Amino acid sequence: MGATLLPELATEVVIPVCAVIGIAFSLVQWILVSRVSLTTERNAASSAPNNKNGFNDYLIEEEEGVNDHNVVAKCADIQNAISEGATSFLFTEYQYVGVFMVAFAILIFLFLGSVEGFSTKSRACTYDAQKLCKPALATAIFSTVSFVLGAITSVLSGYLGMKIATYANARTTLEARKGVGKAFIVAFRSGAVMGFLLAANGLLVLYITINLFKIYYGDDWEGLFEAITGYGLGGSSMALFGRVGGGIYTKAADVGADLVGKVERNIPEDDPRNPAVIADNVGDNVGDIAGMGSDLFGSYAESSCAALVVASISSFGINHDFTAMSYPLLISSMGIVVCLITTLFATDFFEIKAVKEIEPALKKQLIISTILMTVGIAIISWIALPSSFTIFNFGSQKVAVVLVCGCWSVGWTCYGFVTEYYTSNAYSPVQDVADSCRTGAATNVIFGLALGYKSVIIPIFAIALSIFVSFSFAAMYGIAVAALGMLSTIATGLAIDAYGPISDNAGGIAEMAGMSHRIRERTDALDAAGNTTAAIGKGFAIGSAALVSLALFGAFVSRAAISTVDVLTPKVFIGLIVGAMLPYWFSAMTMKSVGSAALKMVEEVRRQFNTIPGLMEGLVKPDYATCVKISTDASIKEMIPPGALVMLTPLIVGTFFGVETLSGVLAGSLVSGVQIAISASNTGGAWDNAKKYIEAGASEHAITLGPKGSDPHKAAVIGDTIGDPLKDTSGPSLNILIKLMAVESLVFAPFFATHGGLLFKIF
Amino acid sequence: MGATLLPELATEVVIPVCAVIGIAFSLVQWILVSRVSLTTERNAASSAPNNKNGFNDYLIEEEEGVNDHNVVAKCADIQNAISEGATSFLFTEYQYVGVFMVAFAILIFLFLGSVEGFSTKSRACTYDAQKLCKPALATAIFSTVSFVLGAITSVLSGYLGMKIATYANARTTLEARKGVGKAFIVAFRSGAVMGFLLAANGLLVLYITINLFKIYYGDDWEGLFEAITGYGLGGSSMALFGRVGGGIYTKAADVGADLVGKVERNIPEDDPRNPAVIADNVGDNVGDIAGMGSDLFGSYAESSCAALVVASISSFGINHDFTAMSYPLLISSMGIVVCLITTLFATDFFEIKAVKEIEPALKKQLIISTILMTVGIAIISWIALPSSFTIFNFGSQKVAVVLVCGCWSVGWTCYGFVTEYYTSNAYSPVQDVADSCRTGAATNVIFGLALGYKSVIIPIFAIALSIFVSFSFAAMYGIAVAALGMLSTIATGLAIDAYGPISDNAGGIAEMAGMSHRIRERTDALDAAGNTTAAIGKGFAIGSAALVSLALFGAFVSRAAISTVDVLTPKVFIGLIVGAMLPYWFSAMTMKSVGSAALKMVEEVRRQFNTIPGLMEGLVKPDYATCVKISTDASIKEMIPPGALVMLTPLIVGTFFGVETLSGVLAGSLVSGVQIAISASNTGGAWDNAKKYIEAGASEHAITLGPKGSDPHKAAVIGDTIGDPLKDTSGPSLNILIKLMAVESLVFAPFFATHGGLLFKIF
Repeated sequence: MGATLLPELATEVVIPVCAVIGIAFSLVQWILVSRVSLTTERNAASSAPNNKNGFNDYLIEEEEGVNDHNVVAKCADIQNAISEGATSFLFTEYQYVGVFMVAFAILIFLFLGSVEGFSTKSRACTYDAQKLCKPALATAIFSTVSFVLGAITSVLSGYLGMKIATYANARTTLEARKGVGKAFIVAFRSGAVMGFLLAANGLLVLYITINLFKIYYGDDWEGLFEAITGYGLGGSSMALFGRVGGGIYTKAADVGADLVGKVERNIPEDDPRNPAVIADNVGDNVGDIAGMGSDLFGSYAESSCAALVVASISSFGINHDFTAMSYPLLISSMGIVVCLITTLFATDFFEIKAVKEIEPALKKQLIISTILMTVGIAIISWIALPSSFTIFNFGSQKVAVVLVCGCWSVGWTCYGFVTEYYTSNAYSPVQDVADSCRTGAATNVIFGLALGYKSVIIPIFAIALSIFVSFSFAAMYGIAVAALGMLSTIATGLAIDAYGPISDNAGGIAEMAGMSHRIRERTDALDAAGNTTAAIGKGFAIGSAALVSLALFGAFVSRAAISTVDVLTPKVFIGLIVGAMLPYWFSAMTMKSVGSAALKMVEEVRRQFNTIPGLMEGLVKPDYATCVKISTDASIKEMIPPGALVMLTPLIVGTFFGVETLSGVLAGSLVSGVQIAISASNTGGAWDNAKKYIEAGASEHAITLGPKGSDPHKAAVIGDTIGDPLKDTSGPSLNILIKLMAVESLVFAPFFATHGGLLFKIF
Repeated sequence: MGATLLPELATEVVIPVCAVIGIAFSLVQWILVSRVSLTTERNAASSAPNNKNGFNDYLIEEEEGVNDHNVVAKCADIQNAISEGATSFLFTEYQYVGVFMVAFAILIFLFLGSVEGFSTKSRACTYDAQKLCKPALATAIFSTVSFVLGAITSVLSGYLGMKIATYANARTTLEARKGVGKAFIVAFRSGAVMGFLLAANGLLVLYITINLFKIYYGDDWEGLFEAITGYGLGGSSMALFGRVGGGIYTKAADVGADLVGKVERNIPEDDPRNPAVIADNVGDNVGDIAGMGSDLFGSYAESSCAALVVASISSFGINHDFTAMSYPLLISSMGIVVCLITTLFATDFFEIKAVKEIEPALKKQLIISTILMTVGIAIISWIALPSSFTIFNFGSQKVAVVLVCGCWSVGWTCYGFVTEYYTSNAYSPVQDVADSCRTGAATNVIFGLALGYKSVIIPIFAIALSIFVSFSFAAMYGIAVAALGMLSTIATGLAIDAYGPISDNAGGIAEMAGMSHRIRERTDALDAAGNTTAAIGKGFAIGSAALVSLALFGAFVSRAAISTVDVLTPKVFIGLIVGAMLPYWFSAMTMKSVGSAALKMVEEVRRQFNTIPGLMEGLVKPDYATCVKISTDASIKEMIPPGALVMLTPLIVGTFFGVETLSGVLAGSLVSGVQIAISASNTGGAWDNAKKYIEAGASEHAITLGPKGSDPHKAAVIGDTIGDPLKDTSGPSLNILIKLMAVESLVFAPFFATHGGLLFKIF
């Protein structure tokens, strides 16, 4: 066991400095975005100074209607409507979620406090019985505090993301008049604002919390990091409601708008005559942006907590080696720096001159950040880790720099490639699905489902390999760090992910503002380029979720003092089979919610088309507000049952059936949830792109299937609509389900270990 | 520990006598069915003596066209065509499967023989090291023999079932002219022939095999029953190929015929102008009859073997208590007697006078057999089990008659009720799905998938409860016996299951022979009544498969000498997650196979409609043979990859990764496969019945959705088509997947324990 190269003081300084740099960088990006003016007077003037960004007349697109002040005013109006809808939804959502948060905080305090009967006496430490640790009551109080902090940070992340996105969408539309390159820069910068703000904010809050808690805990790091797990729970419970609520909102509006608008009335997407069009655009912001923001913040918080809590019971914690202990935070700090450099490659070092350069530019972001991060991880591992360390319960392990890079590249290469292969219409799987539309929607659905199932194979082998390798090198700590490695470039990942919905919204605004067809084509190109990278990002979220929840599960088992989780004991097995069922139950709820909300939306949209004279002719404005209200009400109402299922299951199982059954439930939901999440998101992605393949008609094969409105195209639209709730509501929420149940079990572990298993105690 | 009330000699006599009674009863039923003549001369004459069956003029239907000799000849022709198609397919299938069987038999011999280097020396027994047991080479030889016997019995079961069904279908059609009651009797009797023949045959072969093996093994019951597990492996490996091959055949033909015939050409189902119509009817016989026959025989063989092998290492085996040891066989013998009495309730004690009496009559079969069997199990448990016994590795356990009845009734009430609730159009879930067709196929699919996912919840809780209760009372033996309890009334279950496709075929023949619309209505009524009970039966197959495979898994773990299967060791966890993926991989293969084969079929049918002049007008006969050939070729070719996946996985995992990882794979595929199997079969059933609900238009709500050809009906047809491969190919095959991998692991356990885990040994 040796000391680390990086002194403790340096660690104390480096982490907050990196976080502050991240926040500063995101503010700079914001200022650059805000230069695009939305007020008519300044617009003409501001287009000139923008040229210093490096875009000159060699852009292949000509400028389109830059001087039409009327259009600018229209865009500003629409942006306002979208922003108001999104803000009002989020406030309503946060009211409900706030009530839950308070109730759950009280629950955490009561449950954890009751472990030792609210005693204020110090007790023997779990992993070193000769030392005295802080009382259980302290854990209860500090867990509650960190839960609340996590929840607030998560809510803030989602809210800020939404604000940025609704600020950037119309600006992207306006820049699109000047060319695709300029629009790309605005959209990407806005994504970067969100990415850096979230990553840096999450790190900073966590860092400050740890340092504040340390004042009380002093040398009792075991208790300190136990209490810190509340941060992960807070972050991801908010993420759950954000994802589910936002997911139902956006898909209800989307499916509803498409079914009547595109299928029945044959009007284009985002047509201002469609009453659900504002709701649809609001949905992109509350679902894809705010929901995803909360979600990724949750993943980040959980993987950090998992690594920290495992580290606290390793030699790092026992020897009070602060630098080694802070390894997960140092990795995140390095991630911010790496992402900062990476972002400059997209915005400053190179210039986008044509549509076909966008997708490579985004992919380059992923590749550059990966390469730089590999170096970064190597450096951090070298300076921050001792040459060997031990982990409670897992014996002595050799340090392995190899590990993080290894798993990580396995993840990137296998996982990223597979997602792209199965969801991009440049490859045969999606083309086969498109081809099956010849014989109608039924074969399209059969082929799409089969594709999703098949796409699970390689990622699962990749995850299994990652787990095996990480575990072999550094037991549960290896798994936690591998997950963190996957999430370390979260700022770039979020920038790319957020860029998609912003471009989508920009297109919607162009359509609604009645701008020329070319503007729409440019925003569509931006959006399409983001689709594949977004799918890769989604795949990553699932893969890292599997690793995070396994690490949390491992920490839970060691904290709940279970020696083995033997599948062949009936207590564990019934947990396993019921756990494997939960993702189905959850998906059934969320899909049915989307379906029912979409039905209501369809009826309202039909009603408006049928009863408002002159609507189809574009003479009268539809009643957008009613549709917004339907989506809001439905999603608020419908997010509660699935949320309750996930939040209550660990509590009920732990309290009544005990820690063995709960272990089974965690393992079951993990292994089953990962499969459904992957297949749902790939099936949905494939249907979406099969439809786009037919619409684009870029190859001879595609032309035989099209054009828009042909029978194969109609079949493809049906597939796309089915895929919507799969890929944007159920699929991504399942990540949260598996992580959240694990982190919740971890937080409540001391309670379950002491008072759990009531049912078996009675009988 | 006490002696049993039933002396050994009585046991030796009772079992074969019951089996022979079962076979005799099935022959009697056959003779009764054969009284319906298919030759024109004798037909008019035979209708008179049939009256003595108890059907007189009070039947509400009038006789229709009984004296039209032309129709009889046509029916005989069509029957011949179907029978020839089915026979030729099965022979082709059996050729391929035969090659596999020989190869696999050699593999078993080599693998198991190599355990002790083909030594002929006796060795110490596993569970009682002071005694000498037969050499591993003997286990190798006898396992191979019992594998071959199991395989042959399974093939025979499927073949006989198909022969009976193709013998009965046209006879049912002809009887339908005289009324629905008479047709019901013929169809049900034919189902009973199959049910009793299979149940009795399986029991008899197993019984004889055990007694013959005993001549060599003598007192070494441990070795004897180890070798007997090969019977289960043989039975269910044939079942796999039968189910998958038959499933692909029938659904390729069905989907192909429907997509062109019903959707594009707007001609009714089974219209003789449709070139795929013969292939479709052949499919019912090779898939739903032969495939299901093999499948249920496999379940029966496996659950018997699981119970026997667990018993052989309990005090029954160690004390050589033959009666207690034979408890599983005695339960099956009692089952035959109980089913015999039950059948008389349908055929002789009561009479069907109206259409609405059919479904209650079938349900009564389930209820009567359950009640009688409860008494039967109580008697057998009382006379055949000692008052207490011990099981190796699980400690002392109290006998519990409660157990079997208990689990069994939990299964029946929860499981049967849930399946009916979610798939019958008398309840709100299916009506909701039908209602969602208003907004098109997309919402129909979303609601259908959500329904399937939701329908998993209660069955999983029921299975978990069964497992927990059974295990608490009698450890792994409890689970094995609970599964056997579920399958003990297999004869009645099979009779009801086979009755459905026979009626379906009868309807097809009526349509093709150009018989009056009323005949078709009657056979449709028979078919519809069978649908719900068939769904219940399918549910049962899944529930029992879960229990059987858990019991086999338990036996495997004890035979492979693994002490715990700890989820938190990476070896087990990677097995768990990969195992949970296998059902997806398998489903992807089978669904894609059905899709591709259906595409080929669609092209051929379209080609014939487009190129054969006069076909649509009914002036020329289509080329049925080409369609039959497409289905045959596709299913033979496509059944190999999924078959190989299931058969090779345990071998590869066991050999290269060892028994711990294999345990993980078994647990993972079990908990994940059950969910997909249940949701797939219920989703498919719900779509089917939602379509029928709209077609029937029996309520005001249904009328607003209809009639046939309306937009909601078209959406419903799309759902139905998607459901076909889910409910009839992927879903039912998954049962076999989970059981087969478990039984295969059990058979090869000694090899894996000795030579397995090569990869970890090398690194």
